Amino acid sequence: MTICALATAPGGALGIIRISGPQTLEILSRVFSKDLTKEQPNTIHYGHIKDGTEIIDEVLVSIFRAPYSYTGEDSAEISCHGSRYILNKVLELLIQNGCRMAEPGEFTQRAYLNGKMDLSQAEAVADLIASSNKATHDIALNQLRGHFSTELSRLREQLLQLTSLLELELDFSDHEDLEFADRSELFELSKTIDNHILRLTSSFETGQALKNGIPVAIIGKTNVGKSTLLNRLLKDDRAIVSDIHGTTRDTIEDTIDIHGVTFRFIDTAGIRQTTDEIEQIGINRTYAAIEKARIVLWLIDTEPSTEDINDLTKRTENKKLIVLKNKSDKNDNNSYNLLNLPFIAISAKFGTGIEALEQAIYEAADIPTLQEGDIIVTNARHYEALTLAHSYLQRVIDGLQQQLSGDLLSEDLRLTLDTLSEITGGQITPNEVLGNIFNHFCVGK
Amino acid sequence: MTICALATAPGGALGIIRISGPQTLEILSRVFSKDLTKEQPNTIHYGHIKDGTEIIDEVLVSIFRAPYSYTGEDSAEISCHGSRYILNKVLELLIQNGCRMAEPGEFTQRAYLNGKMDLSQAEAVADLIASSNKATHDIALNQLRGHFSTELSRLREQLLQLTSLLELELDFSDHEDLEFADRSELFELSKTIDNHILRLTSSFETGQALKNGIPVAIIGKTNVGKSTLLNRLLKDDRAIVSDIHGTTRDTIEDTIDIHGVTFRFIDTAGIRQTTDEIEQIGINRTYAAIEKARIVLWLIDTEPSTEDINDLTKRTENKKLIVLKNKSDKNDNNSYNLLNLPFIAISAKFGTGIEALEQAIYEAADIPTLQEGDIIVTNARHYEALTLAHSYLQRVIDGLQQQLSGDLLSEDLRLTLDTLSEITGGQITPNEVLGNIFNHFCVGK
Repeated sequence: MTICALATAPGGALGIIRISGPQTLEILSRVFSKDLTKEQPNTIHYGHIKDGTEIIDEVLVSIFRAPYSYTGEDSAEISCHGSRYILNKVLELLIQNGCRMAEPGEFTQRAYLNGKMDLSQAEAVADLIASSNKATHDIALNQLRGHFSTELSRLREQLLQLTSLLELELDFSDHEDLEFADRSELFELSKTIDNHILRLTSSFETGQALKNGIPVAIIGKTNVGKSTLLNRLLKDDRAIVSDIHGTTRDTIEDTIDIHGVTFRFIDTAGIRQTTDEIEQIGINRTYAAIEKARIVLWLIDTEPSTEDINDLTKRTENKKLIVLKNKSDKNDNNSYNLLNLPFIAISAKFGTGIEALEQAIYEAADIPTLQEGDIIVTNARHYEALTLAHSYLQRVIDGLQQQLSGDLLSEDLRLTLDTLSEITGGQITPNEVLGNIFNHFCVGK
Repeated sequence: MTICALATAPGGALGIIRISGPQTLEILSRVFSKDLTKEQPNTIHYGHIKDGTEIIDEVLVSIFRAPYSYTGEDSAEISCHGSRYILNKVLELLIQNGCRMAEPGEFTQRAYLNGKMDLSQAEAVADLIASSNKATHDIALNQLRGHFSTELSRLREQLLQLTSLLELELDFSDHEDLEFADRSELFELSKTIDNHILRLTSSFETGQALKNGIPVAIIGKTNVGKSTLLNRLLKDDRAIVSDIHGTTRDTIEDTIDIHGVTFRFIDTAGIRQTTDEIEQIGINRTYAAIEKARIVLWLIDTEPSTEDINDLTKRTENKKLIVLKNKSDKNDNNSYNLLNLPFIAISAKFGTGIEALEQAIYEAADIPTLQEGDIIVTNARHYEALTLAHSYLQRVIDGLQQQLSGDLLSEDLRLTLDTLSEITGGQITPNEVLGNIFNHFCVGK
């Protein structure tokens, strides 16, 4: 079946409609001003989309032929004027002439089913489109370019080696003297693989933080300048794309990027509205925010009490606490007794010390520098599969230590292997799993 | 100078970055994985956008060569994954390598300056992108395809003919007996041209109504079902494009399309919030809405007083009034005395009679059926120029009647001609006029 969908967001100068499937060029030729069925692949054609004799738009059509296309099928892209009416009309025409509206992610699903990419690469496409900073972009692109798949296939090779050794042991199971040597090697190899799997699962926390933004809480008493500081931090971070289109920053509201990592300020609605309240330290209302944060910015402009310092230090034991002496232009803040807590002197109003603060926030996040090829697991499905694979492999390791027989171990080893294979979809993947994965895509990809 | 811009709205599966100018292929080759400077025009190339050795995205690049491109210059389009980070980064890279960010409408402005289209066609591009229904789409496409330009050049030819006749008269001005015959022909021709100009200017009201949506007011007393009726009318009208992307209907909120014409409900916020108030007829609060409307829907569920009927009939003298007997399922509405006003029986709740109502609304709008080639003036600049041309030509006609000498008339004739030429930009167009026109475009077009 040939599918079609709008691949760009509505509202721009251009709108791209994507078509894929065996009938692509036949259907397109029925609504286009020239016959495209004989044209060379990877060429662009100027003409009209027509409904009978009525012209709908002047367009450019790009054509691709199987297997050299995104989906691996014959496909095409129509570049239309970005009018809602035109885009609707062209989609309608394509559907009238034999296309079906694509499901979310269906183009990428076809690319997967046609062997253009494995499942983890397909998932990386959605992550790449959603990426809004360098860190998430680099992780998704690494995954799309198959670095994660390579890592997994290396693990699978080692597991197959383990399986072979186990089978060898089974073959020689009547030779009791052979067993010991094999088991030691089997044990070492299992531990190596398991450590590798654990290294991947442990990257998930970082992956999640990078994907969702690292949560930062700004606390401090009323009128200390929390709102001014927040606005100061947000103001520095403007993207060309959102600026030129005058789009709202709704979706990335209250986040900033520092060195390519996104930090997300939590509960800032409160910060912006609490200017009238009287609170002594302000932290009693912000316990929840502190709880959710990974980094806590404590803004002060007078000397805090020892009690407050001790209370906050205790509450942020597992967090990074950054003390900020605000109003550096007015106060001789250096005389404060902060019980040896390090601090940064800033002026939220005049922007003094903000660069140092951003650097401190970035360092507090403690994000490993990503190298080309570094694997960070960001996908919950992958994390679950890795965790499950680890538990199966752990049973193998335990079994080896308990001198269980090889045929008991081989079942768990097979489960480990199958579970890892699910990540890339190497085995036959059930339709409902595929559905779950591609449902989260946008239409047109 | 080579320019670049994002040509699609951010937020889709794909984002298209457009480049145009003499350095297009050189600049692109610096950031692309292969040299494009020797490649054939109208071809598509798969590769990577790179920042040094770092890969930013896997993309498709379409290349075009002067003069066979939209702008008439060498140009290219990069089809990227639609991630905000990627699109920003690619634009940054292009700017670092010698591009300049395009001004709004600059691609189309270049197309105009390079003779790919005239000024009225360039303006039609923006109208076409903004078109959200068949009527505005057809008008814009007609204009883009040069039908308006052809009409104007026909008028200019006739004006030139008039000028020649006047010059002929001047040459023979010593032969007094020749004058009378020429003048009669001059007068007839002037009137013909003027009538044509007037026909164009008079289409502007329809053009504006089609462009902005024809204003409709729903009035009636509280709890008569105004809000239910509004929702019923709005619910029927859903577009594929906005649906699949889950975009809000903000920009087209409270409008419906009937047979390709947009109707805009005015002051509907009030309708949605007045359910608690007690008003007898409800029109006292809605005088302003009636004033702004072209079509008034008066919703009733009990028999109105003769006073109300007379009041409303008077207030809607220059409007179209449609009386709607709501709750057709409950009431025996046919017994109402409406002083011979025609009415439609509907049930807003159950949807009865809504189709008939939509048909009545469409007929009340009294929109001429547009044929291919029909000219409707929608652009205020064009309307002003046509109105001014008419006033100059009127002076010529008056002068002819008053037997003014030919050299006095020829100046007004020249002004008529120049004013009409301004519409297509045939004369040299001042930069500030161009600026005003293209400022209203979106970036990337």
